[in-house]
Amino acid sequence: MIIILSMVYISLEEGLEILTKRFGEKGRTGEVLLPDALGKIAGEDIVSAEDVPPFPRSPYDGYAFRSKDSEGASADNPKVLNIIEEVPAGSYPLRSVGENEAVKILTGAPIPYGADVVEKYEKTEFTDNLVKIFEPLKKGSNIVPKGEDISKGDHVFRKGDVFSPADIGVLASLGISSVLISSPLKIAIIPTGDELVEVTEPSGEGKIRNSSAYALTARLREIGTDPHICDIAGDDIKEISDAIRKEEESDVIITTGGVSAGDYDYIPEVMNSLGADILFHKVAMKPGSAYLAAAFNDKPILSHSGNPGAAYVSLEMLTKPFLYRYSGRNDWENKKIKALLKEGFPKKSPQRRFLPGRLSVEDGKAVIYTSQRQGNGMLSHLGKAFVYADIPAGTGRIDPYDAVSAYISI
Amino acid sequence: MIIILSMVYISLEEGLEILTKRFGEKGRTGEVLLPDALGKIAGEDIVSAEDVPPFPRSPYDGYAFRSKDSEGASADNPKVLNIIEEVPAGSYPLRSVGENEAVKILTGAPIPYGADVVEKYEKTEFTDNLVKIFEPLKKGSNIVPKGEDISKGDHVFRKGDVFSPADIGVLASLGISSVLISSPLKIAIIPTGDELVEVTEPSGEGKIRNSSAYALTARLREIGTDPHICDIAGDDIKEISDAIRKEEESDVIITTGGVSAGDYDYIPEVMNSLGADILFHKVAMKPGSAYLAAAFNDKPILSHSGNPGAAYVSLEMLTKPFLYRYSGRNDWENKKIKALLKEGFPKKSPQRRFLPGRLSVEDGKAVIYTSQRQGNGMLSHLGKAFVYADIPAGTGRIDPYDAVSAYISI
Repeated sequence: MIIILSMVYISLEEGLEILTKRFGEKGRTGEVLLPDALGKIAGEDIVSAEDVPPFPRSPYDGYAFRSKDSEGASADNPKVLNIIEEVPAGSYPLRSVGENEAVKILTGAPIPYGADVVEKYEKTEFTDNLVKIFEPLKKGSNIVPKGEDISKGDHVFRKGDVFSPADIGVLASLGISSVLISSPLKIAIIPTGDELVEVTEPSGEGKIRNSSAYALTARLREIGTDPHICDIAGDDIKEISDAIRKEEESDVIITTGGVSAGDYDYIPEVMNSLGADILFHKVAMKPGSAYLAAAFNDKPILSHSGNPGAAYVSLEMLTKPFLYRYSGRNDWENKKIKALLKEGFPKKSPQRRFLPGRLSVEDGKAVIYTSQRQGNGMLSHLGKAFVYADIPAGTGRIDPYDAVSAYISI
Repeated sequence: MIIILSMVYISLEEGLEILTKRFGEKGRTGEVLLPDALGKIAGEDIVSAEDVPPFPRSPYDGYAFRSKDSEGASADNPKVLNIIEEVPAGSYPLRSVGENEAVKILTGAPIPYGADVVEKYEKTEFTDNLVKIFEPLKKGSNIVPKGEDISKGDHVFRKGDVFSPADIGVLASLGISSVLISSPLKIAIIPTGDELVEVTEPSGEGKIRNSSAYALTARLREIGTDPHICDIAGDDIKEISDAIRKEEESDVIITTGGVSAGDYDYIPEVMNSLGADILFHKVAMKPGSAYLAAAFNDKPILSHSGNPGAAYVSLEMLTKPFLYRYSGRNDWENKKIKALLKEGFPKKSPQRRFLPGRLSVEDGKAVIYTSQRQGNGMLSHLGKAFVYADIPAGTGRIDPYDAVSAYISI
C-alpha cells in the first residue's frame, strides 16, 4: 500500500520544481521610501555611484602629519611638529601639511593634503602650537582610506537581495532615499469547510474555529508578502469557485481544506469547474500530503490541508520557497543541513516525514530539538519551529543524537 | 596601557546588568487585534478556557464504530456493520452507535457516542448501508482525542512570550480575537555630529551621510519597537540637550556620536547639563567601546558610537538585550554558544573583540562565517550577521576552524 502511494504521490522537490518552472517570477516592481525597504526584495541591481567613506578620514582624535617626519622618533627623542590648523569632524582642512607640520584632527575628519599618518592624541604631548611624537609611524597608519567600506562602481546589491537593517544603513550612506523593490505578492487566503466558524464564534457541536488561516496569514506577512483572509467558504463547488474568481486582484490564491480524497474534498472539482490546470495533487510527505497546485489564468492556486499543523508544514516546505522564488528572491530555497536529532524519534516512518523543531548548538554541534507532541492538527508545537528534520520513507526508530538531514526554513 | 583600559572600562555583561537592574520593565500594556499581535510580547499569561479540538474527532474519512465489534475481523472473515448515519465535517452525530453499527464519518467530524475507533475508508468495502471491516482495531485507533492540542486550563502563553505566526493560529483556535500585549517601546534616535548630512544631501567636503540612524532604526523596528529618527543635532551641548528634552513622549533615547574621549565628544557634558545620572561610560569591547548609558528622569539614554559599524555592534550586544528585557520579553538575553570559526582570524586581539558573522551548519557542526573585511565604520559586512564571535582580550591569532565562544543575536 505504502509503495503504491509513494509511486503515485509527487515528491516535495518535484512539486517545487513544477511550480517554479510553471510560474517563474512575478516581476512587478514599485518604488518605496528607504525606511520601508526593510525586509523587501531589491527590484534591480544597485551600483555605488560614490566611495564610502567619501574621503580618507581619521578614526581617532589626534594629529595628522607626514610619516617621514616621525622617522627616528622615540620616547627619549620625540619629534616636535608645528600645529598649523585644527579640523573637527564635519569640517574640511584648508591647508596642506608640509615638513614638520601637523594638523589637529578629530574622529571622522578628512585627512589634510600632505599628511599620510595620524597619531592618537593619547600617545602625544601637546601645547596649542606644538605636538611631540614619540614613535615612528608607517605610511597610512590610523587612516581610514576613501572607499574602505564601499568603492565607487561596487555592485552593492543584486536584484533579488533582501534588505537587512544594516543594508538600509548602507543605502543611506550611498544617498539612496527611495528604492525599487519587488512588490509584495498579494495573497488571498480562502478557508473552506462547513466545520469552520470565525474566531469570535463558539466552537463545539462539530464546529472548530478558523485558526489555520490566521497562522498562515501571520507567516505570510512575516515573510514579506501582503496577505488577506477571505470569508469562509462552505463545502460547495460553486461557493469556493466564486470566492476564487472574486480574487482577480490577488497574485496568488491559497485555500485550506477540501484537498484530501474524501467525499467532501471538493478542491479538485473546483479546479475542473474553473477550468484551472491541475499541476499536481498529493505530495509524498507527512504531514502535508494533502496539497493541490493549479494554474488559473496563469495565477497560482495552492490548496493546503484543512489540518492547521499539516497546512503550516506544507507552507514552510513547499509554498514558502515557491513564493520566495515567485517574488524574485535570490535565496529562495530552504537550506539542507545535517544535524543531530536530540530526542530521536520512537516511531517508524513508512512515509517521508518532517519533524518540526528548533536548531540549537551544543558544544559546537548542531542539534535539533523537536517537540514530543506531533500531530497533523496541532499548531501549538510549531510555535517557534524553523527547522524540519527530513526522515526518509522506510526509516525505523531513530535514537537520540542520531544524525539526520533537515531543512532550515526562515 | 591595555591593562589600565580594561580596568577602567566596564564589561559588556556588567553594563547589561546595570541597565536591567536600574530600569527593570517598562510595563505599559495595550490591547491589539489578533493579526496585529504577530511578533508582539504577551502582556499577561493566557490560560485556555477550552479544549482544542473541542471534541474527539476523526483524522480520516472512514467509519466509526465500537472496537469490540472488530474483534476477530480478518481479510477472510470481515465483520459487517450497519451504517446508521453519515457525519460530514461541520456536522454533529445525532445518533449513538450500538452493537454492529457504524457511522460514516468525514475528516474532522466529531466521533459519535458509543464509537471508540475509526477505520479509514480505503481499508473497508462498503455499500450505502453496509461496511465490511477487515482487521481488528484497538480502542482509540484513528481518533484525535478532545484537547489533544491544547487542554482546558493549559498555560498556553506566559507573560513575556513573543507571538509567532503559529501562535496567532493557536490564539485563533482558542477564540481569542484581541490580545493584551506589552506596548512597543517608543524610541527616539538622535544623530549628533557636525559632520552628518541628511541622506538626500551630497557627501564629501568633510560631510558624511547620516547612515547609522537609518540602520539602527530599521533594526529597532525589526525587533518590535517603535523607533523614529529625530533631526540631526550639531556638536553642541545645548542643541543635543534640547533634542533630548523634547522627546518627553519617548520611552528610550538613543544617540549616535560624541561619546568617545575627544574634544568634540559632548555627550558626557550633555548628561551633566541635563542632570542625568551617568550609569557607565565606555565598554571593554571592540567595536563598540564608545558607549554611555544614563538615566534622565528614569528614562534610559543610550549613547552609541558615531561609527555606524561600532554603533550597530553595540546595539546588538548591549542595547537590544536591554530593550528586550525592558519590554518584558522572557527570552531577552543573547544566547552563548561554542562554534568553529571557519576562516579563523589573523590579528591579535589585545582587547575583547566581537566578530560579526553568520552561523551555518557543516556536517553536523556549527560554523561561524565572518566577513574578512571588518572595520569600525563599516555597515556593509553586517548585512546578514546574527552571530558575534566573542574573542577574549589577549587572544593571539586564531586558526581556521578553531572553536570560539559566540553570542547569537536574533
